[in-house]
Amino acid sequence: MSTIDLNSDVGESFGNWSFGDDEAIIASVSSVNVACAFHAGDPSTIRATCTAAALAGVAVGAHPGYRDLAGFGRRFIDMAPDHLTDEIIYQIGALQSLARVAGTTVSYVKPHGALYNTIVHHPEQARAVVDAIVSVDPALPVMVLPNSEIERAARAAGLRTVSEAFADRAYNADGTLVARTRPGSVLHDVGEVTDHVLRLAIDRQIRAIDGTLIDVRAESICLHGDTPGAVAMAAAVRAALLGSGIEIRSFV
Amino acid sequence: MSTIDLNSDVGESFGNWSFGDDEAIIASVSSVNVACAFHAGDPSTIRATCTAAALAGVAVGAHPGYRDLAGFGRRFIDMAPDHLTDEIIYQIGALQSLARVAGTTVSYVKPHGALYNTIVHHPEQARAVVDAIVSVDPALPVMVLPNSEIERAARAAGLRTVSEAFADRAYNADGTLVARTRPGSVLHDVGEVTDHVLRLAIDRQIRAIDGTLIDVRAESICLHGDTPGAVAMAAAVRAALLGSGIEIRSFV
Amino acid sequence: MSTIDLNSDVGESFGNWSFGDDEAIIASVSSVNVACAFHAGDPSTIRATCTAAALAGVAVGAHPGYRDLAGFGRRFIDMAPDHLTDEIIYQIGALQSLARVAGTTVSYVKPHGALYNTIVHHPEQARAVVDAIVSVDPALPVMVLPNSEIERAARAAGLRTVSEAFADRAYNADGTLVARTRPGSVLHDVGEVTDHVLRLAIDRQIRAIDGTLIDVRAESICLHGDTPGAVAMAAAVRAALLGSGIEIRSFV
Amino acid sequence: MSTIDLNSDVGESFGNWSFGDDEAIIASVSSVNVACAFHAGDPSTIRATCTAAALAGVAVGAHPGYRDLAGFGRRFIDMAPDHLTDEIIYQIGALQSLARVAGTTVSYVKPHGALYNTIVHHPEQARAVVDAIVSVDPALPVMVLPNSEIERAARAAGLRTVSEAFADRAYNADGTLVARTRPGSVLHDVGEVTDHVLRLAIDRQIRAIDGTLIDVRAESICLHGDTPGAVAMAAAVRAALLGSGIEIRSFV
Repeated sequence: MSTIDLNSDVGESFGNWSFGDDEAIIASVSSVNVACAFHAGDPSTIRATCTAAALAGVAVGAHPGYRDLAGFGRRFIDMAPDHLTDEIIYQIGALQSLARVAGTTVSYVKPHGALYNTIVHHPEQARAVVDAIVSVDPALPVMVLPNSEIERAARAAGLRTVSEAFADRAYNADGTLVARTRPGSVLHDVGEVTDHVLRLAIDRQIRAIDGTLIDVRAESICLHGDTPGAVAMAAAVRAALLGSGIEIRSFV
Repeated sequence: MSTIDLNSDVGESFGNWSFGDDEAIIASVSSVNVACAFHAGDPSTIRATCTAAALAGVAVGAHPGYRDLAGFGRRFIDMAPDHLTDEIIYQIGALQSLARVAGTTVSYVKPHGALYNTIVHHPEQARAVVDAIVSVDPALPVMVLPNSEIERAARAAGLRTVSEAFADRAYNADGTLVARTRPGSVLHDVGEVTDHVLRLAIDRQIRAIDGTLIDVRAESICLHGDTPGAVAMAAAVRAALLGSGIEIRSFV
Repeated sequence: MSTIDLNSDVGESFGNWSFGDDEAIIASVSSVNVACAFHAGDPSTIRATCTAAALAGVAVGAHPGYRDLAGFGRRFIDMAPDHLTDEIIYQIGALQSLARVAGTTVSYVKPHGALYNTIVHHPEQARAVVDAIVSVDPALPVMVLPNSEIERAARAAGLRTVSEAFADRAYNADGTLVARTRPGSVLHDVGEVTDHVLRLAIDRQIRAIDGTLIDVRAESICLHGDTPGAVAMAAAVRAALLGSGIEIRSFV
Repeated sequence: MSTIDLNSDVGESFGNWSFGDDEAIIASVSSVNVACAFHAGDPSTIRATCTAAALAGVAVGAHPGYRDLAGFGRRFIDMAPDHLTDEIIYQIGALQSLARVAGTTVSYVKPHGALYNTIVHHPEQARAVVDAIVSVDPALPVMVLPNSEIERAARAAGLRTVSEAFADRAYNADGTLVARTRPGSVLHDVGEVTDHVLRLAIDRQIRAIDGTLIDVRAESICLHGDTPGAVAMAAAVRAALLGSGIEIRSFV
């Protein structure tokens, strides 16, 4: 039987502000990327999220981001690579501590937001992220966009990489994501998304925005948890995969 | 041969702002309380401080504080005990991660500033601190003011407590500290401080502000690292102890 | 014709996190207390809120709070009064600048959350708030709980005070609020709230939790904007007042 | 008699961390760029700095920066221009309020650090800064590097621009600054700096790093306040200018 991992960002509430419906998302996926309090999340939110993930048997990944609550980690910060390394070591350690108390462990790392996007093409920050993970635990896999600087740097350092694709994003014929500024870049139709996900999980292919069928490596598929209809979309994707005999299972 | 631990706060620089002379202090003490980035410290400062402590063979303690950079953790925050517990778990974990990368480990916990003062008399916050330490590692000792709520709560939970006295503070005849607002509360004279420390280390006694000699339990003596003349004071205390045949050694 | 002011807290979204339905609340009240970015709010949120208030012809008040995003300004911070004064001058000035750009002005001050509660009984912090307002503009009224330290301090300094009552809170027979920890402290029933508000606006009385009728001074009535059903409650209160011939109008 | 303005960054202490010797710098210059609490500075520091500037008769400029205490505003943040505009309106307003209380006013704007460097070449952020100043007060001059995007955008919007040169930086023959990564980019010798400043103030020329003499527009010369020897350097520059009959006077 074929298997695929579904991942989603969680733990992004902060103090009095709530964000997303973590409980519902955790019920649909096999891995959750838990905020580490630099771009979102506070210690009590993080702990509660880890407890919910532990109860659901869902894998917990560290989701470190830039130190930017006001920007939700979605803005590039041109920071020194060694500072970035240390900030990521700090974030992973903090999450490990709360995860352990919640009865689970951190089993992979997926950088967040602008950091995720930056290390696709920025060798110094990609290397900084890799240095952090190697320092903390060289057995921790890192979730990456295929064919990125972070994938190359992680492999060069001997880290396991887990390639991912996006459930609701359109792709160009060269396998890159259609820029969010372009029309059609984000898929909103449930049927379109489930078709896209099934083709990814079964055929390991994507139909690009120009109609071409392209081969794609994806051990995990990312579902967004914060868009309108996110919970229903996640449930629909889950049902479609299970209905096609695909097992939804973490890669760890 | 008699031994005593000397401890001091370090790692309290933040970004572009430096604070204290950590290198010089580390050379004089046997234990350092390392800031965890909530009241002071940033990940790179913390890592560098842990590296220096590891090289000097000095024990590293977690020094968690209130989330209050603007107040340097010196202002009471009336926060919910469960949030405090989670914030301390987070801080200890973050420090553990950086300490490990720096080649050392966190071997005790000493709360910082207003949190330290609060848990002398505030049962709920004292209990919150104890809950955090027990959750992270029940083998971690906690450094406390003798006869405090935190000492009682820690012992009740089975934690090891390490009692401490202050090198440069005057005491009342009942063993409490003379309030900082009273004249004579802080000792500035090197001779006075070394006399006080030797009496603590050798006779386990303090001469109170009214002249009475009182018995005091102190496994560790705290030196301030941020006052004018702090480095010279630390060196003088160290020399006085060594000259009297007292070994300066961590309690861990 | 009788008039009353209705006030509510707004502008409390922060970055990617939204909070409350400001537009709907602004449609029901005559005065809005706009967060100043220390406990909640960011400059763009604040500006948008001021623009909406200006369009609706609703008065804008400064809603300064403790510097505590993680606690939403709902936790007492034992800060030095002179620092508090300067933080409030800073917050009011920042809001004045954004309000002016949005085509309106700051016409009163209402402290937020834990600061509001603290200055009911804490003379030093009450005085610090008064000092700030006097420094910025002695013509700015301050909204207060009647019979509080802040009311006394403000009057002693020559500031205009605007007394307020709460639409959804039960009162003791001595005119103080029933503590939130007591059953029945918060009114949830729309009919009960509108009765309470009409009695306040028409008879200047409250029926206390023990049934006694007490006299109450209230130039403004506070509606909460962040509770479930807040928008419907605000609309019901507005309709009840208008239906009884009471004009809802700012005190400025 | 010829005149020149000397400017320097001040008010960059934060809470328990001090930075620079503001009092000594204020004694040497005619204009001070006061931090606004986003990259450095806290309300009490800012107020005290404004008070000192007022007493010394030195002009106060707003020195807004990116919201980045951990990076001291020295790291580019790729933020949305409209958010940047609102953050600058907020910062200027906050400073205006504290300056007024301190008996002075904000008479110009000079962006800080990475923001200053970014708007030399980034049209959208340059425009965002201009929009903020125009919104707050179109009579406020903005201090700029000559031939920059910010200079062009400010002039296009009708703002007065004040061109500045740097006392301790080497220049290329095309009038741009020698990159800090290049040897010789920063002048450390007092004689070299005073020669450079006198040539700027008297001849309106700079001897570029290749020996060429180039014409330079500079209404103000920036002195760094945070380098070792900064205070002595500032005093030497002041003495050299006065000794050559140049009046040191703000441009406002």
